[in-house]
Amino acid sequence: MRIGFIGLGRMGTGMASNLIKAGHEVTVYNRSPEKAAPLVALGAKSAEHLADACRGDAVVTMLADDPAVESVVFGEGGIEATLAPGALHISCSTISVDLSRRLAKAHAQASQSYVAAPVFGRPDAAAAAKLFVVACGAPDAVEIASPLLDAIGQRTFVMSEQPEAANLVKLSGNFLIGSVIESLGEAMALVGKGGVDLQAYLEFLTSTLFSAPIYRTYGSLIVEGRFEPGFAAPLAHKDIRLALAAAHELRAPMPVASLLNDRFLTLLAQGGENLDWSAIGSLAAQDAGQKAGA
Amino acid sequence: MRIGFIGLGRMGTGMASNLIKAGHEVTVYNRSPEKAAPLVALGAKSAEHLADACRGDAVVTMLADDPAVESVVFGEGGIEATLAPGALHISCSTISVDLSRRLAKAHAQASQSYVAAPVFGRPDAAAAAKLFVVACGAPDAVEIASPLLDAIGQRTFVMSEQPEAANLVKLSGNFLIGSVIESLGEAMALVGKGGVDLQAYLEFLTSTLFSAPIYRTYGSLIVEGRFEPGFAAPLAHKDIRLALAAAHELRAPMPVASLLNDRFLTLLAQGGENLDWSAIGSLAAQDAGQKAGA
Amino acid sequence: MRIGFIGLGRMGTGMASNLIKAGHEVTVYNRSPEKAAPLVALGAKSAEHLADACRGDAVVTMLADDPAVESVVFGEGGIEATLAPGALHISCSTISVDLSRRLAKAHAQASQSYVAAPVFGRPDAAAAAKLFVVACGAPDAVEIASPLLDAIGQRTFVMSEQPEAANLVKLSGNFLIGSVIESLGEAMALVGKGGVDLQAYLEFLTSTLFSAPIYRTYGSLIVEGRFEPGFAAPLAHKDIRLALAAAHELRAPMPVASLLNDRFLTLLAQGGENLDWSAIGSLAAQDAGQKAGA
Amino acid sequence: MRIGFIGLGRMGTGMASNLIKAGHEVTVYNRSPEKAAPLVALGAKSAEHLADACRGDAVVTMLADDPAVESVVFGEGGIEATLAPGALHISCSTISVDLSRRLAKAHAQASQSYVAAPVFGRPDAAAAAKLFVVACGAPDAVEIASPLLDAIGQRTFVMSEQPEAANLVKLSGNFLIGSVIESLGEAMALVGKGGVDLQAYLEFLTSTLFSAPIYRTYGSLIVEGRFEPGFAAPLAHKDIRLALAAAHELRAPMPVASLLNDRFLTLLAQGGENLDWSAIGSLAAQDAGQKAGA
Repeated sequence: MRIGFIGLGRMGTGMASNLIKAGHEVTVYNRSPEKAAPLVALGAKSAEHLADACRGDAVVTMLADDPAVESVVFGEGGIEATLAPGALHISCSTISVDLSRRLAKAHAQASQSYVAAPVFGRPDAAAAAKLFVVACGAPDAVEIASPLLDAIGQRTFVMSEQPEAANLVKLSGNFLIGSVIESLGEAMALVGKGGVDLQAYLEFLTSTLFSAPIYRTYGSLIVEGRFEPGFAAPLAHKDIRLALAAAHELRAPMPVASLLNDRFLTLLAQGGENLDWSAIGSLAAQDAGQKAGA
Repeated sequence: MRIGFIGLGRMGTGMASNLIKAGHEVTVYNRSPEKAAPLVALGAKSAEHLADACRGDAVVTMLADDPAVESVVFGEGGIEATLAPGALHISCSTISVDLSRRLAKAHAQASQSYVAAPVFGRPDAAAAAKLFVVACGAPDAVEIASPLLDAIGQRTFVMSEQPEAANLVKLSGNFLIGSVIESLGEAMALVGKGGVDLQAYLEFLTSTLFSAPIYRTYGSLIVEGRFEPGFAAPLAHKDIRLALAAAHELRAPMPVASLLNDRFLTLLAQGGENLDWSAIGSLAAQDAGQKAGA
Repeated sequence: MRIGFIGLGRMGTGMASNLIKAGHEVTVYNRSPEKAAPLVALGAKSAEHLADACRGDAVVTMLADDPAVESVVFGEGGIEATLAPGALHISCSTISVDLSRRLAKAHAQASQSYVAAPVFGRPDAAAAAKLFVVACGAPDAVEIASPLLDAIGQRTFVMSEQPEAANLVKLSGNFLIGSVIESLGEAMALVGKGGVDLQAYLEFLTSTLFSAPIYRTYGSLIVEGRFEPGFAAPLAHKDIRLALAAAHELRAPMPVASLLNDRFLTLLAQGGENLDWSAIGSLAAQDAGQKAGA
Repeated sequence: MRIGFIGLGRMGTGMASNLIKAGHEVTVYNRSPEKAAPLVALGAKSAEHLADACRGDAVVTMLADDPAVESVVFGEGGIEATLAPGALHISCSTISVDLSRRLAKAHAQASQSYVAAPVFGRPDAAAAAKLFVVACGAPDAVEIASPLLDAIGQRTFVMSEQPEAANLVKLSGNFLIGSVIESLGEAMALVGKGGVDLQAYLEFLTSTLFSAPIYRTYGSLIVEGRFEPGFAAPLAHKDIRLALAAAHELRAPMPVASLLNDRFLTLLAQGGENLDWSAIGSLAAQDAGQKAGA
C-alpha cells in the first residue's frame, strides 16, 4: 500500500520503519524534516509538505497530543482536505475521546475512512514491532488497516465499531498503569519504613501474584529511584487528565484517577517536570518522611 | 518432625494434609473437633485439648484473626505455656504487625522459637501445596521451619530476621490486591459506560500489560458480577484495616488504602456482608449509575 | 453614569434594578428580550442589539458561564468592538481565571478598562443589594467601578490589581462552600446513623462553633433533604471544575476539591441534574446505607 | 453538692475552679498532686488517693484519653468501686464511643448514674466558664448534672438518652473543625499561589460567608504559620481516629476524615509532633511547592 506517515518522534520512527520493512511504499512527514533521514535511508520518501504525505491509500498519524493532531488534520493542506475519498486515516496517537469523535465525524463528511488505533508499548517495543494495538472503527476500515497494524505490533485488539472507544481504552490503560505506580509507591513506603529490603520485596511480588511486566518495570524504577524519562511526567499527566475528561463526559467518578491527578500536580509543583512518570511513586515515601528508594 | 497444627479452616485443612503427606507426625487441634476427621483419616492424631497439640517439635497456627491467635497462644494450656523450650511456633495466620511483635517477645521470654510465615493463595492453592510463603525470624528458626514450609507451599521468601516483617509484607500484599480490584472497578465503570465490551476489555488487559494472575482472577469476578466468597468482604476489610494500623504505627500515609477502607464500609453498609471482597470493584460502576457487570 | 447591563437572569435582574434605583441611566440587554420588561418599568432602556448596551461609560455583565461571556465580548457588535476607549467593562459572572485573563488582555489592547467583580450571594441578596463583591483591576478602574458596586452589594473587597485574582477568589469561595456541604454530609451521616436527632445537631453546631450563615443554610437543606434549586448542581459542578482548572494551572493539588468533583459526577450520574448542589451532602448518608435526611 | 474532680490539666483546672466558685464542695485529684495547689487555694480539698475523690454526690472526670479514663474508673479504689449507689459520674473527656458505652454499662451494673458531657472550647474558655457542653444520659441523671454543667459552660445541649451519643457528637465536631482547617489550607494554597494576599483573603472570608469563630481562629494560624499548640497534633489525630473508629462501627464511610487521617500521618512523619493541629493546614501549600504562610 501507499502510505503516508506523519510524526517521527521516538515511537513514530520505529513504527514507520516497520511499515517500510513490511514492503509498503511509505512517504514520511515531520515538522522537523531532519528526522526523516534514517527512514529515507530505509527506502521512504520524504514529503516536503504535509499534503504530500496524504495522497496515498492511507495515512498514519503518531503525534504528541490533541493540538498536534488537529494541526495536521484540519486546515489547508491537511489530511481532511487532501486525503482521497475512500482513503483511510489511522490515528495512533494518544488523544482525547472528544477529538477522536470529531475526527470520525470530519472524515465521514469527507467520505474518508477512519480508524483509531492507539498503541501500548515504549519506544523499544515500537522499534521491534512488539506494540499492542487497540483498533476501533467501521469493520471494512479496520480490515484495510489490519495488515498495517500487524506490521507495527505483535497483536491487534478490535474492540468496537466506534473509533473513540479505542482512545477510551488507551486512556483507561494508562490510568491502570498509573494506579499500579501509586499503589506500589504506597506499599513500598510502608514496608520500607518497616525495615523490609525493597529489592527483595519487589522480587517477591513479581515472582508471585504480580508477575506482570508492569510491576517489574515500574517497581524497579521506584526501588532504584531512577526517574529519567522514559515517559515524561507532563505527558503522563496529560493522559490522566484526558481519562478524567472522558470520565467527566461519561459521568463516571474515578477517585483513584483524581488522586493520580493530585499526585502529578504535586510532582510538577515540586520541580519534577523532567522526570519519568514513575516518580509519582516516590511521593508516598516522601509524605512518610523518607527519601524515595531509601 | 512431630508437629501440632491448630486451625482447621479451609486453608488450614489443606496445609495440615500436606504436612502429613510429607511424612511428618501431625497432631491436629480445632475448636470444633469434627473438622479433624479427614486429617485423622490421612494419619493425623486429633488432640482433645489444645495443650496436646503443643508438645512436639513445632506447632503451626492458621487462624482467622488476632483474637483467635491470642486465645491459643496465651493463657492456661496454651502454646506459650506448653511448648517446650527450644521448640518452634510457626504462625501462618494473617495477623497484625503488633500481635506478631508481641508473640515474638513472649516466645523469646519462654525460650521458644518463633517464625512468622503468612501465606498467599486461596484454599485450592493450600490443598495443592502451591502457596507462596513469606517467612521471617531468626535464621536458625527459619532453617528449622524450612522443610515444613516447603511442604505447604511452592516457594518460601525469607525477607527479614524480624518476624513481624513477614506480617507487614502479607498485609501490604493484600492492600495491593485490593488496589487492583478498585482500579479495575474504576476502569471498567469508565469503558463500560463508554460502550466497550468488558469481557473483551479484560481479555485485552490480561493478554498484554496486565498478564498477572491477580488481574485475571479479580477482573473476571468484576466483569461477571459473581461475588460469592471466596474471601469474604469482612475478612478482607479486616486486613486493610490491619495494613492501615501498621501504616499508622509507622506513620506512612496511604491514600489508596484509606479509599479501600471507605469502599469496604460502603459495601458492608449496603448489605455486602456475605460477598467476596471483589465486590468493592462494583462500587465505581454503582456510583456511575450502572449495575455492576452491566 | 450611563451603564449597559447584560444578562437578566435571577441574579442580573436584581443587580440591574439596584443600579437603576441608585440613579444610573441603565440600558439592559438580554438574549431573551422579554426579561427586560420589569426593568423598563423601573426606568431602564431596553437594547434591541447587544451593541446598543455598549455605548455608555460602563457595561456590566452577569452571565452563566465562559461561553456566554465570550459570546457578548468577542465578535461583531460585541463589547470589545463597541465599547469606547476609556470606558469600563465590569465582569460580575463566575468565569474561569483563564477567560478573565484573556478579557483583561483584550480590553487593554482596545484601550478599554476592565474590572473583574464576581459576587457572593443568592438571588434574594442580589435583589436586596446585599451581595458581597470582590473587585480586582487597575486602581483607577476600580475607583470608577466603586459606586456601581456599592449600589449592588453591601460591601466590596478590593484584593489585587490583577483582575483574574477576583475570579480565583470567587472560585475558591465556592470550593469552600462545597467543602462545608461535604463535611456536614459526612458528619450527619455519622451522627444520624448513631441515633442523634439531626435537627438538634444542626442547632447545636450553628449555635456554637459554626455560627456562620453557610452552615445554617446548607445544614438545613441537608437535614430536610430539600434539594430544589437554588444553585443547580451542574452549575456548581462547573465552578468546582473551574477551581480545579485554576489549581491545575497553578499546580496546587486540592484533594477535597477532587473529592467534590467525584461527588458531583456521582450525583449527576444518578439523576441529580435538577437538584440544588447541597444534594451532594446526601451522598455520604447514601453510601452509609441511609436515605438523606432520614 | 459534694463533688470529686479528677484530672487537673489546663482544661480541668479551669472547670474545677468554676465548680468551686459556684459554691460546690469540691475534692480534687490528680496523678501529679502538685496541680491541686491553686484549687486548694480557692477552697478545694485535695484527695491523696483517687478513692477519696469518689465519695461525694458526683465525680467529674476530665482526662486526656481512653486509657486515662479507664485507669480511674476501673480497678481497685477506682470510681466504679467507690462511688456510692445512686451517685453520678460525669465524664467530660473526649473519649471513644466504645468506652463511653462500656462506662454506661459498668455504672448501671453498680447502680450508679452516668452522664457523658464532653465540652467544646480551649483552656481560656474553660477558665471563663464559656465552654459549650453536650450532655447525654438518662433524663434524671442529666437533671442532676445540669447545675454543675451550667457552672462550667455557657450553654448545655442535651441531645440523647444514650450517653455515648454525646461522645459521637464531640468527635464529629472535631472532625468538622479539622475539615475546615484542611479546606482553608487548600484554598489558601490556591489563592496564595495565584498572588492573592492571604491576610486580606481571610479578612474577606470571615467578614462574609464564613463569619464563624472557627474560620477566624484557624485561618489566622494558617496565614501566620504559627503552629505552637494550642491543641497538639497527636491529640487531635487521636480524635480523628476515634471519629473513624465510630464511623467504622456504624459503617459510615467518611472520605474527608480519611484524608485528615492521612494528613496527620504526613505531619507527624515529617516532625510535626509538637505543633498545633492547624499545621495540617500548611500541607496543601507544601504539596504545591510553597512554604506555609508564604
